[in-house]
Amino acid sequence: MKIYQHKVQYYETDKMGIVHHSNYIRWMEEARIDFLSQVGWDLKSLEDMGVVSPVISVESKYMCTTKFPEVISIEVWVEEFRGVKLKLGYEMKREDVVVNRASSEHCFLKTDGSIVNVKREYPAFYETLRSLAEESKSKADKG
Amino acid sequence: MKIYQHKVQYYETDKMGIVHHSNYIRWMEEARIDFLSQVGWDLKSLEDMGVVSPVISVESKYMCTTKFPEVISIEVWVEEFRGVKLKLGYEMKREDVVVNRASSEHCFLKTDGSIVNVKREYPAFYETLRSLAEESKSKADKG
Amino acid sequence: MKIYQHKVQYYETDKMGIVHHSNYIRWMEEARIDFLSQVGWDLKSLEDMGVVSPVISVESKYMCTTKFPEVISIEVWVEEFRGVKLKLGYEMKREDVVVNRASSEHCFLKTDGSIVNVKREYPAFYETLRSLAEESKSKADKG
Amino acid sequence: MKIYQHKVQYYETDKMGIVHHSNYIRWMEEARIDFLSQVGWDLKSLEDMGVVSPVISVESKYMCTTKFPEVISIEVWVEEFRGVKLKLGYEMKREDVVVNRASSEHCFLKTDGSIVNVKREYPAFYETLRSLAEESKSKADKG
Repeated sequence: MKIYQHKVQYYETDKMGIVHHSNYIRWMEEARIDFLSQVGWDLKSLEDMGVVSPVISVESKYMCTTKFPEVISIEVWVEEFRGVKLKLGYEMKREDVVVNRASSEHCFLKTDGSIVNVKREYPAFYETLRSLAEESKSKADKG
Repeated sequence: MKIYQHKVQYYETDKMGIVHHSNYIRWMEEARIDFLSQVGWDLKSLEDMGVVSPVISVESKYMCTTKFPEVISIEVWVEEFRGVKLKLGYEMKREDVVVNRASSEHCFLKTDGSIVNVKREYPAFYETLRSLAEESKSKADKG
Repeated sequence: MKIYQHKVQYYETDKMGIVHHSNYIRWMEEARIDFLSQVGWDLKSLEDMGVVSPVISVESKYMCTTKFPEVISIEVWVEEFRGVKLKLGYEMKREDVVVNRASSEHCFLKTDGSIVNVKREYPAFYETLRSLAEESKSKADKG
Repeated sequence: MKIYQHKVQYYETDKMGIVHHSNYIRWMEEARIDFLSQVGWDLKSLEDMGVVSPVISVESKYMCTTKFPEVISIEVWVEEFRGVKLKLGYEMKREDVVVNRASSEHCFLKTDGSIVNVKREYPAFYETLRSLAEESKSKADKG
């Protein structure tokens, strides 16, 4: 997996001279979309199949401020997935310094608003997410 | 017509300590939607009728910086309308000081992407826009 | 306390047709600034005294989608404050429907980056926040 | 000169399913900062020298809609510079299709708000901008 890189933009700063905290939520989306694309399930294709993926929750812990024009690396992993709710974890770094830790939860919906049973309807996607969840669990257990 | 008021938000500032210039384009939209609503054609109803109104062009002249938490008054008028392209004018003020002058051009499209002939398909909307165009022209001629 | 009202803007929507989730983090800021202002400590005055208030963490639970041009009411309360870290709670409603529950944590810093001991340096501000924390605690105990 | 590339983000779309027009103004900034950096005058260094560069005006013509997750190429050039006001031109393309043409005007200010005489105070920067202006003029004359 290639770690996603975000270049801080001038318009992302606020009058404190640092990146406004709301932008990290957007960077999570950038990194998440890149992550799903890397594992073979890009959002565009999902949407073309009639599946959207709204956000159920986000959590973001701001550990260090970031500034224009730094480059932030964002690692993404599957923290939990049992078939309906997908929980992702995020770690953002400026070089070796962790600047943010975050998580987000998602479900998958059809155009009519009904919840997608990923296991039954998209078994290949289900397997991908399950194996990614196992992988990060085993990493965490070892770490 | 009631002049639209925008309260500058903290998240609209940038590291220069002033409002980032891209936000004025958004304020134009806020004021435009309010204006159309006041003249009886709110965007939501237009969209419910299957009409969207993409932006063809914008121009914005920044005359004074604005800061958090100032309140900016935004006057909107119909600068030109002959049936297809709608051109709106904007003047933004902080109390008596003009901080921005702007304009935007719009067309009206159906869901299938075809251009709406406003005069034929929405004659009442056409009349409203035409009379507003006349009104601002006569004001400009006198002013 | 007057409940803060946010009018959903067109530019806050995304291609799902709903408000993009990152905007709720900005609405929290709008409501928080209004709240602090109502209790007599507006952010602008704090900044003029050389005190900034960065965000340490946010949590946001999205319970119902929101759409343009709905009006969202945002209630804010002090969830916890013992002198350094301020934790605020938020409940967002569209009419009677809760659409979002959230919280944010903040500290107070001087221009040089050092942490402000609010109790010692701004005793009146400390008392305000403490009494608001007591008030919401007693409400929660009763509720 | 390397042409700047912007990857359209999901959060840049609106309920029409296309990129919200305000984002193009931000992409202009991204491309402009990249351009200045490529010619040896990155914004960060200018700001460290106490020079900021506020936007005086923008113009943007939207010729084709853009969508998530397209990649947009943005070419930037110096349209005019005589020593005080810098005018830049922009052409945005999705593959070979021109989607947007734009321009922006800027001045250079010291921290105290006074206008920088670039020719006198930063002669090397002046020469760079002048030669870039000549270059694009001669291209336009030939084109």
